Amino acid sequence: MSHENGRVWSPVITPFAADLSPDIDLYVKHCRWLADNDVGLAVFGTNSEANSLGLEEKTQLLDALVEAGIAADRLMPGTGVCALPDTVALTRHAVRIGVSGVLMLPPFYYKGVGDEGLFRYYSEVMERVGDSRLRIYLYHIPAVSQVPLSLDLIGRLLEAYPNNIVGLKDSSGDWANTQAVIERFGAQGFDVYAGSETFLLQTLRAGGAGCISATANVNPRAISQLGKTWRADDADQQQAALVRIRKIFERFPVIAALKAATARYSQDEQWAVLRPPLVELNPQQREDLYALLDEAGFDMPGLG
Amino acid sequence: MSHENGRVWSPVITPFAADLSPDIDLYVKHCRWLADNDVGLAVFGTNSEANSLGLEEKTQLLDALVEAGIAADRLMPGTGVCALPDTVALTRHAVRIGVSGVLMLPPFYYKGVGDEGLFRYYSEVMERVGDSRLRIYLYHIPAVSQVPLSLDLIGRLLEAYPNNIVGLKDSSGDWANTQAVIERFGAQGFDVYAGSETFLLQTLRAGGAGCISATANVNPRAISQLGKTWRADDADQQQAALVRIRKIFERFPVIAALKAATARYSQDEQWAVLRPPLVELNPQQREDLYALLDEAGFDMPGLG
Repeated sequence: MSHENGRVWSPVITPFAADLSPDIDLYVKHCRWLADNDVGLAVFGTNSEANSLGLEEKTQLLDALVEAGIAADRLMPGTGVCALPDTVALTRHAVRIGVSGVLMLPPFYYKGVGDEGLFRYYSEVMERVGDSRLRIYLYHIPAVSQVPLSLDLIGRLLEAYPNNIVGLKDSSGDWANTQAVIERFGAQGFDVYAGSETFLLQTLRAGGAGCISATANVNPRAISQLGKTWRADDADQQQAALVRIRKIFERFPVIAALKAATARYSQDEQWAVLRPPLVELNPQQREDLYALLDEAGFDMPGLG
Repeated sequence: MSHENGRVWSPVITPFAADLSPDIDLYVKHCRWLADNDVGLAVFGTNSEANSLGLEEKTQLLDALVEAGIAADRLMPGTGVCALPDTVALTRHAVRIGVSGVLMLPPFYYKGVGDEGLFRYYSEVMERVGDSRLRIYLYHIPAVSQVPLSLDLIGRLLEAYPNNIVGLKDSSGDWANTQAVIERFGAQGFDVYAGSETFLLQTLRAGGAGCISATANVNPRAISQLGKTWRADDADQQQAALVRIRKIFERFPVIAALKAATARYSQDEQWAVLRPPLVELNPQQREDLYALLDEAGFDMPGLG
């Protein structure tokens, strides 16, 4: 990926077979379609149902992508889980195959942990991986992880590990926070990604790097287009068009809606399967989603 | 363990070596001391830092206990993690070695999941383990997991899997909820454990099974004594004495305080280590804790 600002990544949805095992062929196919539509592959994100996948499954999926010829530098896998040794194992594997970076959740079981504990956790991961190629994007998603990453923590990590801590994804949905992170750390080359394309133009204008967004799974071309042309005259119009599509998906449980749309436009019903505890859209929800997408003239060209 | 009511379990704290790996010798020693003090071993609970341990580490620790001669029917390991295959793998292993039961968290990354998704998750675990010896205690700890287990969900699981779903640990701290679960399901032989000895007497008088409590790591004899003699005349006095000790630990981050106390009374400083993101008590906190324990005449006889 170029290191110009305007980069867009998709937290790639994970297809499951009838027995709930990852469907590797379908996965590779979707990743290729996303890459062809100029978005990076932030596999194992929240929208990938990554925390419903075991360590071994994630390792196998990474290997399958590389074996299928996906360039490793197009990958930014999520590697942060609750247990230090598992985070270290997956991160080490990801670095070894040459990924662009890793997106790292804090350990998220214990709540109310302080900055000192989180600092020790991230430090321990970096010390154990012990590889100068390790590039960590911190993952701030307080509504889901319930473990926020404070500005002080980011600053402390950046000071101690300037070569390993390279950016952050802000999925707080709180623009004031995104802006504060960019203002405080952006000038040092710290890459701040918005967690949704809703904030893409704002983020880029403020000096951020781009976005990593759920809906980049279904609307990659238009989102990456704004990433490339955000200085153009029609940028605000492009942004408004992205928001219109985004808002349709936000009316439903988002992961289920992304999969239902992908099932429809790829004509492959296998996409509709989610791994428990998540569930698929019910028939009425699917009908409503499809009607809204048709009304908006939405399509996923080249899929399936 | 006897199936009389009045059972007490300890979510066994996990000792770590200087390199943060589990200290197996110290672990076995502590488990023996707890068993000698008549509490069951609910290893891999919240207070065990279980979600900071990897799947492989937990498997090794279980095996080490059995190899050390701890009777498997004294064990109730926590086996619920976020990813279905990992929960299945650890649960299957636990059943195979003959544990008394397993304590199972819901998958806790995704928030706001509905009963249908949780039902499917637990069902899938039971179907995959596929063993009539599997006895699941559901683990309701909403403040930490952020994924509560509703009465409707419990009822639905109990109806579908009456032989596998055998009880619940209620760590909500909300007596009205504990009472409601006992009233609705207790008569069917469903074992309800309070998540703290603060509620032990109330739980037993209401028809519950006992408690699974953090402080049973440090005060096992007195708690198990109330479990055995809760119909005696001095039961309320015993309960009050338990609460006095409990309240001391609750003034501090509890897991760190349990470990600091164990370090002191075993004279083994190794116990003071926690795995990140948790941190040990600072020197002032330790001093305060020890002063309060001395004032209360507290001891952990026979330890170390």
